[in-house]
Amino acid sequence: MNNFDFYNPTKIIFGKGEIAKLKNEIPKDAKVLVLFGGGSIKKNGIYEQVSVALEGYDWTEFGGIPPNPEYQVLLKALEIIKKEKITYLLAVGGGSVIDGTKFLSSAALYEGAEPWDILKNKIRTEVGMPFGTVLTLPATGSEMNSGAVVTNKETSEKFGMGGPGLFPKFSILDPSVVSSIPERQIANGLADSFTHVLEQYMTYPNDALLQDRFAESILSSILETAPRIMENPSDYKSAANFMWNCTMALNGMIQKGVPTDWAIHAMGHELTAFYGIDHARTLAILTKSHYTFNIETKEEKLAQCAERVFGITEGDQREKAEQCIEAIEEFFLSIGISTNLSSYTDEFEGTAQKIAQRFTERGWLGIGELGKLTPEHIEAIVEMSY
Amino acid sequence: MNNFDFYNPTKIIFGKGEIAKLKNEIPKDAKVLVLFGGGSIKKNGIYEQVSVALEGYDWTEFGGIPPNPEYQVLLKALEIIKKEKITYLLAVGGGSVIDGTKFLSSAALYEGAEPWDILKNKIRTEVGMPFGTVLTLPATGSEMNSGAVVTNKETSEKFGMGGPGLFPKFSILDPSVVSSIPERQIANGLADSFTHVLEQYMTYPNDALLQDRFAESILSSILETAPRIMENPSDYKSAANFMWNCTMALNGMIQKGVPTDWAIHAMGHELTAFYGIDHARTLAILTKSHYTFNIETKEEKLAQCAERVFGITEGDQREKAEQCIEAIEEFFLSIGISTNLSSYTDEFEGTAQKIAQRFTERGWLGIGELGKLTPEHIEAIVEMSY
Repeated sequence: MNNFDFYNPTKIIFGKGEIAKLKNEIPKDAKVLVLFGGGSIKKNGIYEQVSVALEGYDWTEFGGIPPNPEYQVLLKALEIIKKEKITYLLAVGGGSVIDGTKFLSSAALYEGAEPWDILKNKIRTEVGMPFGTVLTLPATGSEMNSGAVVTNKETSEKFGMGGPGLFPKFSILDPSVVSSIPERQIANGLADSFTHVLEQYMTYPNDALLQDRFAESILSSILETAPRIMENPSDYKSAANFMWNCTMALNGMIQKGVPTDWAIHAMGHELTAFYGIDHARTLAILTKSHYTFNIETKEEKLAQCAERVFGITEGDQREKAEQCIEAIEEFFLSIGISTNLSSYTDEFEGTAQKIAQRFTERGWLGIGELGKLTPEHIEAIVEMSY
Repeated sequence: MNNFDFYNPTKIIFGKGEIAKLKNEIPKDAKVLVLFGGGSIKKNGIYEQVSVALEGYDWTEFGGIPPNPEYQVLLKALEIIKKEKITYLLAVGGGSVIDGTKFLSSAALYEGAEPWDILKNKIRTEVGMPFGTVLTLPATGSEMNSGAVVTNKETSEKFGMGGPGLFPKFSILDPSVVSSIPERQIANGLADSFTHVLEQYMTYPNDALLQDRFAESILSSILETAPRIMENPSDYKSAANFMWNCTMALNGMIQKGVPTDWAIHAMGHELTAFYGIDHARTLAILTKSHYTFNIETKEEKLAQCAERVFGITEGDQREKAEQCIEAIEEFFLSIGISTNLSSYTDEFEGTAQKIAQRFTERGWLGIGELGKLTPEHIEAIVEMSY
């Protein structure tokens, strides 16, 4: 096991009817900006619940944060924060709204001229403007971590940011919200959380017994929940498990003391930047190729996953590893997610070269858990995903 | 799944050589009281490491906190805290030293005349004096939770206390310390952490897929680690797993959204209060009787544990449940822990009646996850444990 620090001060308030507890968490004298996305919260009753909970507060709102939160849109919210002397942010949405809010939490206190530098220059946020979240779309885990990803449409770039100042003060997780989520988004949440676990688990073995078993627990729980929640998003029991799976998949816990990969995400972000493909689907496109390409280094963990998560008992270690890769692909297909780039765009030719070139330009010359995947390797993996 | 709040702001600093990081966590202007137990830290090099890390600080020390930290001893430390105007506490020890420090954190800011009232009247600690810990004995999980148990020798009482003000600011977990722990204490740590998980898991099913699997993960990891660490406490890999198992077994995570039992602990505390039996061993004494007595309500989870943790595949649900109880007892025996009260004291006759009477006097008329175990039931369970 590697040395590690673990710190996660976000307060989770979980369960039916808990949105009303907002008022216990936000200081009464705060000037609040409520941030949300395309406005679905005004149709499904969540906006109404938030409004009631915020009665007596001085608050205003900013809607229209798009999926893959865009820097150019967020700058407009930043203007409001400064003009209205906002002191507290409240994200009401999924990962995109929460990530956008994290960017704003950092940018609001950033003293440089160009807030994009926070992302471009990988500036860690030690202190941000305080914010809470009301999660409306389980998927990214952003509600209980200190990371965010923001897209710059002008430059077709999608970069991550983070730092201890970016943990939400609180996050309210009411599984009732799942009933109004479109099937496509539920599938995305399942695929996203599943891949988050894989990125932190499917590496080389590192004698971290509990971290391995926790990761396998989340994978098993997602597999068990997936058909139930896809069939009936109004089933509260399944919704609660779906929501908690997604949060635990990326709240920092399972990555402590172990190597992590994240190459699938690095490649996937480029597919979103180029083609606007849903984040979760970019992960499903790349997973099989990535694990097939890297089967030598990942064989032992792939075989362990085959046994413990998929119940595969036949074959030697290599055969189990191969069956695991197949089983992962079958999972994506079972929730209606295609696993080839060509299912999403006709203009896939040349994608691998373009991504490899970008990685070269950025100096990303060795990624993955061993830091050994070169742009040439990346090109091969992406090409296998067409 | 039940509604729940989850909040755990303790920063964990884990790994070999990390004790030196103390100096990054304690404010430079703090007046520090270092608390420890019987003095083994002065023999195994930990005191030396702490002293070096505290160079430049204004600090003093209080040693001699006994196992099952005693109120009367802690009052002496409280005097020093007040006289020396201490502002920060540092526990260097196992669960007893950390629990004692939590009591002092609360008592230092308590305004009532008699600090025992914090325990007797179940007063929650919202704000305590800040403190950190250096863990020297993995077992209780106290290093990452906000609970403590304190013993009053004069009244033979052992009570719990807690509150959000009692989370350590930080805890340093260096698995190297395990190499100098006596075998008896390592066995206690294994039994204690194992039972902590059982108390939060072996109830009635509650559709909490992930919490169940996390609990099973910790049990499996303890079972896998136990023979290795008992054989060679100097094996760092096993020590690291042992340590992390113990912390995760009682840091609040697996109990969220599920019913919890804690009847074994309630009964066990009395065995320690009466006979001074090691806390972990009291749990091993009572577990089999408790689960056998309550097999009707716990059958489904016992059978699930049999399958997933012990790999038991034969028999119907009841038979699997019974085999699970046997397997748990075998685990305790395998690490050298006797599971009958009469192995620890000759004066066991009448114990069951005495405990039942105490519970009656305190108004504990219904305990366990269903709140239905009466003093008569408790008497029967304890009697089965002779």
